[in-house]
Amino acid sequence: MATSEALHDRFERNIVFGLVMRIADGADPAEALMAAVKSSGARVSDLRLVGTEQDGIVQEMMVFTTGDEQMSRVRASVEKIDGVQVVEVKDLAMETHKGGTCEMRSRSEIRSNTDLRIVYTPGVARVCKAIEKDRSLAREYTNVANKVAIATNGTAILGLGDIGPLAGLPVMEGKSAIFWEFAQVSAEPVLIDTHDPDEFIEVCMKIACGFGAIQIEDVKAPECFKITRELDERLSIPVFHDDQHGTATIVLAGLYGALKKVGKKIGDLRCAISGAGAAGTAITELLQQAGIGDVVVCDSLGIIYRGRSENMNDEKTALAERTNADNIRGTLGEAMKGRDLFIGVSQPDIVTREMVKSMSPAPIVFALANPVSEITVADALDAGAAVAADGRMMNNALAYPGIFRGALDCAAEAVTLKMMMAAADALAKAVPEGELMPEMMDPATHRAVAEAVVEASGR
Amino acid sequence: MATSEALHDRFERNIVFGLVMRIADGADPAEALMAAVKSSGARVSDLRLVGTEQDGIVQEMMVFTTGDEQMSRVRASVEKIDGVQVVEVKDLAMETHKGGTCEMRSRSEIRSNTDLRIVYTPGVARVCKAIEKDRSLAREYTNVANKVAIATNGTAILGLGDIGPLAGLPVMEGKSAIFWEFAQVSAEPVLIDTHDPDEFIEVCMKIACGFGAIQIEDVKAPECFKITRELDERLSIPVFHDDQHGTATIVLAGLYGALKKVGKKIGDLRCAISGAGAAGTAITELLQQAGIGDVVVCDSLGIIYRGRSENMNDEKTALAERTNADNIRGTLGEAMKGRDLFIGVSQPDIVTREMVKSMSPAPIVFALANPVSEITVADALDAGAAVAADGRMMNNALAYPGIFRGALDCAAEAVTLKMMMAAADALAKAVPEGELMPEMMDPATHRAVAEAVVEASGR
Repeated sequence: MATSEALHDRFERNIVFGLVMRIADGADPAEALMAAVKSSGARVSDLRLVGTEQDGIVQEMMVFTTGDEQMSRVRASVEKIDGVQVVEVKDLAMETHKGGTCEMRSRSEIRSNTDLRIVYTPGVARVCKAIEKDRSLAREYTNVANKVAIATNGTAILGLGDIGPLAGLPVMEGKSAIFWEFAQVSAEPVLIDTHDPDEFIEVCMKIACGFGAIQIEDVKAPECFKITRELDERLSIPVFHDDQHGTATIVLAGLYGALKKVGKKIGDLRCAISGAGAAGTAITELLQQAGIGDVVVCDSLGIIYRGRSENMNDEKTALAERTNADNIRGTLGEAMKGRDLFIGVSQPDIVTREMVKSMSPAPIVFALANPVSEITVADALDAGAAVAADGRMMNNALAYPGIFRGALDCAAEAVTLKMMMAAADALAKAVPEGELMPEMMDPATHRAVAEAVVEASGR
Repeated sequence: MATSEALHDRFERNIVFGLVMRIADGADPAEALMAAVKSSGARVSDLRLVGTEQDGIVQEMMVFTTGDEQMSRVRASVEKIDGVQVVEVKDLAMETHKGGTCEMRSRSEIRSNTDLRIVYTPGVARVCKAIEKDRSLAREYTNVANKVAIATNGTAILGLGDIGPLAGLPVMEGKSAIFWEFAQVSAEPVLIDTHDPDEFIEVCMKIACGFGAIQIEDVKAPECFKITRELDERLSIPVFHDDQHGTATIVLAGLYGALKKVGKKIGDLRCAISGAGAAGTAITELLQQAGIGDVVVCDSLGIIYRGRSENMNDEKTALAERTNADNIRGTLGEAMKGRDLFIGVSQPDIVTREMVKSMSPAPIVFALANPVSEITVADALDAGAAVAADGRMMNNALAYPGIFRGALDCAAEAVTLKMMMAAADALAKAVPEGELMPEMMDPATHRAVAEAVVEASGR
């Protein structure tokens, strides 16, 4: 298990700086640069040329650090390298999010009074009247069929907890930017300032007519279950909770890829899941739908079983009913013994190498706790895992843009388990040789997901 | 007074077609084209070159019509003209609104996994934490300070009445497009599906944390008064009802310009207003603030006075208290006698030439009922008005983009009467020689309004 210092280090290395440097002609500091960053405990992600000058070049190095102090050490080390002059240190996240990462723009140029009289009154009246007469025309003559509400109350923002909707807005805007960049979906952050799930539901009900789908985002469990379920029942547009459905889709996609590698069949798998929140519950449901019969789910108290009384809620009681056929009891360690598949969506560093070694031969380990996984990929592989992955490799942004694109395109009334399985299958098929997951930056990835979702919808 | 046929014609001529024609070299059909349109009862707005071919040119003529039937007559007439071949008739409003007129886009390119890890997790956590610690940073590191909610329940869409929020969406999107094009404001349509003003207010309260300002749009009176007033009191961001505050600002701007022309002083004016809804009430308040002492307001039953019992409500009772010092009674015609200024925000064709003639010498007539005014500009001028204008000339889109731009820029907590007066003054100063209102398409117009609003805010 990682030491608490190393844990702290891994947890905190999410602050990204851009170090802009002038490199003199004749100098070749690449190796020294990498050493300087490494010795400071930081990590380089990108190094790129940003300009050329008369007597040298300008490069920007992107560095993931634990914060300002570590970055100061990186800078000091870099400044000692011959031929390197630091021009600027950029706080990349703050800089990128300056002014926000999404905005509502016009799709119609207004260059004349005639343009204005078409976009707005009096010309627009014709469009309103047409929709008044046939509401389905709104899909064609407004943006509603391409619009997703990213609705949050800020109660479970990333791993940061209940920091409120406004402090969570950069996450919603980031998600909106991803929606646009990967799938040309017009997604609007909707901040709902309430802790009451019923109030959250009522606000969504009142504003839902302006959207083609709703993504519930970073709402804490168990409230997220009630909210998602009730909105899904009451609304005739898709209601998708990424922490549940997006994560489940990605896990299934990764599993399809891993099974090919280990040569096992999904129906034969014995699976242990750590985490009985939004993700764990949805993963269980989708994996069972996909054919896995033997699943046990653990929370912080260990295996969830029928008859357990401590730390239960309605969702866990339902989980106990439909998992753990033999109704075994015990710790997570006991749950993992002899299993083929471990899925962690729970806490940092709670899985040891010994626990992985106790699994069946050639086990699959998906340690997805965010931002610090249950066990590092390196440790899992070292302990005998045939396939191991963490949350960086299995990123939800591979799934939800295409899922929504498809659901909007076919005017789906819901995202069904069948559509999620089709998305997972499409993702697995798009994986390049030797990789576990497909290429995020390839538009074909998201297109393939969208097409699979449309086909699975039967519409 | 216009005949009912002419009225129908004026009312309905808001359907815009684009007639695309191939004009053979050597042909000069311009005059014949205009005659063809005129004889069909339609009106040409623009004629423009859209292409050149080997043996001629392609032109598009934009035609405002009463509908498909009239457009068929136009087409038939045009087809008879020598050297003209009709290529296509485009339904311009439907075509322009196809897919909607606004959409949420990314402000940040995502071209690499590093980009993704900065726009979204893990990099975004730094931004969230910074805002959690100091909420005011949201203004700088999200789009919230540039975001306006265009909130409607669809109960008073244009002159179309209560057609519901979805059928009203093209209007909200059009407004959003105008916001972006004229003032780079990110404005999102928010459809709220309720007829209950208290529910409308509660939804706005819950989602307001995601916006820098709220524009209440096309909500019918008297509910709009309660909604605007209560939200304005309870929220620390501007709440602006365009039908009230935007219209009042434009009227005052037009009045400033008109006064220069007629050489009267605002304090000496005697004013009659027709319409005691959202616009009439707000105009009364702003004009009084600007120095007009003598105002009478009429509704469909005539002059509103203290002690009247029929067709009253709280707003009208308050109006009676602060207008009509002599507490006169009578019809609109009686109200207009001897007055210097008439402002109509009421019903089509209810003012006759005789009524204008009964006003003081060189009266000012703003007949703003939409889409058909209380009296035509031509008739008002003919009856002796020194200045006359209708809603096409006095367009709210001159005011609200700059007002919001300014209010957002200075983080105003409200749009005050002082800020509206400053906006009106800035508009009046931007009027070109010989015109009544400034140039809508000139960015300088909207910039001048924004700057005046910031200055008047005192922030």
